[in-house]
Amino acid sequence: MTEPIDQLCIDTIRALSMDAIQAANSGHPGLPMGMAPAAFVLYADVMQHDPADVDWQDRDRFVLSAGHGSMLLYSALHLAGYELSLDDLRKFRSWDSRTPGHPEREHHLGGWRTPGVEVTTGPLGQGFGNGVGMAIAEQHLRHTFGEEVQDHYVYAIVSDGDLMEGVASEAASLAGQLQLGRLIYLYDDNDISLDGPTSLSFDSEDVSKRFEAYGWHVMDVQDANDVDALRSALAEGKAETTRPTLIHVHSVIGYPSPNKQGTSGAHGAPLGEDEVRLTKETMGWDPDLTFHVPDGVYERFGAGARKGAEARAAWQERLATLKEDADQAAVWDKAWVGEALEGVGDALAPGKIDWGKPALASRVAGKMAMEAFSPFVPTMVGGAADLSGSTNTMFPGGDDERLTRDHVGRNVYYGVREHAMGTAVNGMAAHGGIVRPYGSTFLQFADYMRGAIRISALSNLKVAWVFTHDSVALGEDGPTHQPVEHLAALRAIPNLTVLRPGDPLETAEAWRVILEELDGPAVLILSRQNLPVLTGAPVVGGVGRGAYIVRTTDDPPQAVIVGTGSEVHTALEAADLLEAEGLKVQVVSMPSWELLEAQDDAYRQSVLPAGVPKVSIEAGIAMGWQKWVDASVSIERFGASAPGGELLERFGITPAAAAAKVQELVG
Amino acid sequence: MTEPIDQLCIDTIRALSMDAIQAANSGHPGLPMGMAPAAFVLYADVMQHDPADVDWQDRDRFVLSAGHGSMLLYSALHLAGYELSLDDLRKFRSWDSRTPGHPEREHHLGGWRTPGVEVTTGPLGQGFGNGVGMAIAEQHLRHTFGEEVQDHYVYAIVSDGDLMEGVASEAASLAGQLQLGRLIYLYDDNDISLDGPTSLSFDSEDVSKRFEAYGWHVMDVQDANDVDALRSALAEGKAETTRPTLIHVHSVIGYPSPNKQGTSGAHGAPLGEDEVRLTKETMGWDPDLTFHVPDGVYERFGAGARKGAEARAAWQERLATLKEDADQAAVWDKAWVGEALEGVGDALAPGKIDWGKPALASRVAGKMAMEAFSPFVPTMVGGAADLSGSTNTMFPGGDDERLTRDHVGRNVYYGVREHAMGTAVNGMAAHGGIVRPYGSTFLQFADYMRGAIRISALSNLKVAWVFTHDSVALGEDGPTHQPVEHLAALRAIPNLTVLRPGDPLETAEAWRVILEELDGPAVLILSRQNLPVLTGAPVVGGVGRGAYIVRTTDDPPQAVIVGTGSEVHTALEAADLLEAEGLKVQVVSMPSWELLEAQDDAYRQSVLPAGVPKVSIEAGIAMGWQKWVDASVSIERFGASAPGGELLERFGITPAAAAAKVQELVG
Repeated sequence: MTEPIDQLCIDTIRALSMDAIQAANSGHPGLPMGMAPAAFVLYADVMQHDPADVDWQDRDRFVLSAGHGSMLLYSALHLAGYELSLDDLRKFRSWDSRTPGHPEREHHLGGWRTPGVEVTTGPLGQGFGNGVGMAIAEQHLRHTFGEEVQDHYVYAIVSDGDLMEGVASEAASLAGQLQLGRLIYLYDDNDISLDGPTSLSFDSEDVSKRFEAYGWHVMDVQDANDVDALRSALAEGKAETTRPTLIHVHSVIGYPSPNKQGTSGAHGAPLGEDEVRLTKETMGWDPDLTFHVPDGVYERFGAGARKGAEARAAWQERLATLKEDADQAAVWDKAWVGEALEGVGDALAPGKIDWGKPALASRVAGKMAMEAFSPFVPTMVGGAADLSGSTNTMFPGGDDERLTRDHVGRNVYYGVREHAMGTAVNGMAAHGGIVRPYGSTFLQFADYMRGAIRISALSNLKVAWVFTHDSVALGEDGPTHQPVEHLAALRAIPNLTVLRPGDPLETAEAWRVILEELDGPAVLILSRQNLPVLTGAPVVGGVGRGAYIVRTTDDPPQAVIVGTGSEVHTALEAADLLEAEGLKVQVVSMPSWELLEAQDDAYRQSVLPAGVPKVSIEAGIAMGWQKWVDASVSIERFGASAPGGELLERFGITPAAAAAKVQELVG
Repeated sequence: MTEPIDQLCIDTIRALSMDAIQAANSGHPGLPMGMAPAAFVLYADVMQHDPADVDWQDRDRFVLSAGHGSMLLYSALHLAGYELSLDDLRKFRSWDSRTPGHPEREHHLGGWRTPGVEVTTGPLGQGFGNGVGMAIAEQHLRHTFGEEVQDHYVYAIVSDGDLMEGVASEAASLAGQLQLGRLIYLYDDNDISLDGPTSLSFDSEDVSKRFEAYGWHVMDVQDANDVDALRSALAEGKAETTRPTLIHVHSVIGYPSPNKQGTSGAHGAPLGEDEVRLTKETMGWDPDLTFHVPDGVYERFGAGARKGAEARAAWQERLATLKEDADQAAVWDKAWVGEALEGVGDALAPGKIDWGKPALASRVAGKMAMEAFSPFVPTMVGGAADLSGSTNTMFPGGDDERLTRDHVGRNVYYGVREHAMGTAVNGMAAHGGIVRPYGSTFLQFADYMRGAIRISALSNLKVAWVFTHDSVALGEDGPTHQPVEHLAALRAIPNLTVLRPGDPLETAEAWRVILEELDGPAVLILSRQNLPVLTGAPVVGGVGRGAYIVRTTDDPPQAVIVGTGSEVHTALEAADLLEAEGLKVQVVSMPSWELLEAQDDAYRQSVLPAGVPKVSIEAGIAMGWQKWVDASVSIERFGASAPGGELLERFGITPAAAAAKVQELVG
């Protein structure tokens, strides 16, 4: 039995959503209307949140994975007391508004955030995986700092479309594996997708059974309008602490639109003026009122905020107690601004790590760098997609450092679930408290998680993607595993800093730059094969500027060779060959296009002087290099299965080839 | 009870696999050894195949989804009578061998195929989805031509890693939805992945229950060495015709290696000389013999080939009967060479389609082109990932044209499963009989299926990817849905032809080029917004050459503006502005970089003459354009949520911006 005031709140979500979508003449009314009761119950009654402090570290997180239903979220945030005005709602889907078509965590236009929006969603399945990452973060931080200061839930509304996406399947399996009991997802089962009824593509599957198979706690709510049933299912979900919970909610899309409810016509287009009026009449509303909030609605919706404010006050006292320990306080504060502890730069400075050998793979150097910075990042969490032994991206410590349900370790075993890993890493960064969460696999399989990498860039999340086995030089595994176009494809993504260090020193410095200097997502590209340690080069100040000179000439250079990663030493050897022929050649190591792009023109000119013939060498396609150089030594085809050294020879990634290209230009 | 000769055959697979991996000093022995009995039973007893005709259209297909276990496949193919010699096995993982590290359908080095390898596998989950596509193809062709000529099964061996991948989850759900009863998958459950025991990441999930939830028929084989159990499970799987079958096989990785079986040490590295010797001794073999095939093994293994040869002879008689109908014969023959029927070019020629309006979206033009060529491609199968109403990529005919279990239609409703769609399309192309299978979604979500797109290029499959909503001009859905880097990222993939037509005429011509001229995979990029019909331009001969002049000048041009897609008309308007200022500007429409690249230098010079200032305009990043032009009008950031026309203005994709850039260059 729904209280009249509760019904009014729910109908207000529906009315605001219809109005905003109508005003924009674009949007998705079906989900906001069908799931309005769930949003009401969450924001008014169930969730621990306080609109007065949207960054409160112990708030419950809410994710609208089905981001196309954004008006559900915006309406609920407005009514619940967040700084999102009716005027903001009127600007739905318009330029530089706080209410874009899909929820955006950080507005790339103005750099500000829509209060209460935790993550950018819309590409289906992403939000599902973000929530899993948030629950991992909560678990890790709860074990690290105690449940006095970290003890919350992660809620999400997920759709048929979300659950059809592979990334959600991976994330669901991972959540079951890690027994993320703080995860409570509401599945909006409305039998409709964009193409029409789900019988077209999604009715043979027993979703509840599938989630039970993943190890989830599954419940049914037969009617999305039954708020009592929703409340008791949510309470049961909270009580279940060892399994994630899926509440299978049977809803009617576009409810209670008399002519469009239950059809795909309510999914992705405005209902139309007439139908909006009819729907308001059906709800007992005056159809002439738009963007109207009836008396009592703010008051009733505000119950969540009032309860949250009390909880936050109590929590602040507990946090003060924790912070009486200065060490704990330092770790806590650094964690929530996403920074390593003081001293990390020193630990990674040239000379501090004993590489032990004259040459080693940058993936091995990366492992040694991680060992060096490990003490400075107590809440850094990461892992690999079943390749930890190959990518070398685990913190030392073995089983003690493994992150499990009961254990505080930092190393996550993601299994062969690249895309879920990506979304989980994004979710950890969005949650906060986890310093520079990272995910790792072979560079080839960046393709499998590209959707998540893009979201990290669009949302400006402080994550790290560590991709190893970065060229055909990985050898025998062959073209299915050999990246050739992947560096270019990653550089293509806006707001993503790609770093491909050329030796162990640059690798350590690249990690330092990522931990100390970068505000957004970073990609670290590492080799499988050994690379010589290039001592003497000024890596500090060099790597962070994107490119720097690793071989100078006494007089102005007659040519410049630019290399990245494993091709830096190839470039140096080419310069030696050319020197023997009397040519003065400057060699530049260019670990990051984006960082060089950010330098002033004078610096860029000093490394890549105009008017001097310039050649790049990189074991991948040349696409985009034309911006920087006059000619490129590259691989414009798929790789092959053979030993790596042989492949570099056969594909012409050699000092001789680079030298010949320079000679061609110099003439 | 395993017959001694059967055991010898099984152990021969193990021995050959160990020997080849040892010789290469690289590879994955665990799976070939653990699953040797399954491969033996399939090739010697169960599968309908004939090594004398590897292209036999009605053969059973076998997919090794866990492609890292390639030596299992190579050993079985050799022993079963395929043209793959012991010498080929000795060359495992070496340059230009027929036995690369992972199975490759078409060797990009020499262009030839390894006999019996159906698809390129290795990136996990791909093969799982390829098999689903093959089963869709079989079903469609069985309904089209009759079970007399198309009536076979699709087998696969899939691993833990495959089943953790999201793409496999999507494909499994789709297979359940379409009731692909001809699918029989053996799940190699060996409790080990690269990181170690699956307890690290994959033991909370009940895989059998999950597949039951997808609507699969699931059986257990408790011991991979129990060949009788394998045979009867396979027989049951064949008898079950309405559900796909998963046979959950419990195996021991690396069996019977005394020291490495059951450990991750047997997974991805050679066992080592000593352990190979010990294992051979354990099997009762002389450890000094390498690449040895004991007496009787070829004979026993050849049972499959002998049975297959008989079946093929009978089938050929049935095919001859079918071909007595000339129309049927023509359709059959064209289908299996992957070509449209005669006349498709005429149907798409300029003037043949009445566009009805002066401007329409290229996605709408695409739909009209499909209507026009529909009669010429009776076995073309495709669909969209729950966006058919938006991408406009369905053949006309409504429910009659829908592909279901019982129905012959060409339109597949893939649901929100982009990656599975990609793998299924690849599987259809690899199966054969389906002319230019295609998959469609928004360009943004090409990211979700990039793994499959890459495999289509690597394997040179004749597929089409149709991506619509191709720029920020899609408008209000915002940056989560607006591609900006996607064109560049697709152009980056080797051996992939990307076509972005600029108007309805170019759209129809692009489809003709794809159907009549291209031998490999193609990407067709279409707009959401209306584009004017640019009459008068010589699209035939122009589009197929990648770029052509759409606005000439009387005298040699003083500048060239190059546009693609929706920016062709922007470029034309810019030229008008410049003409008003007395500048002679040539305008080039450049739908495809790759096709222009393939022209001779004289042609390239005619459209993009050296020494003349050249400007590109494209509503995406400029990356790579530096190869073709001197300056670019581009979007170097994520999009935003607002009406599409407003975004083009705000981001400077306008005639004025292009004209200004030209003026800058001309000085």
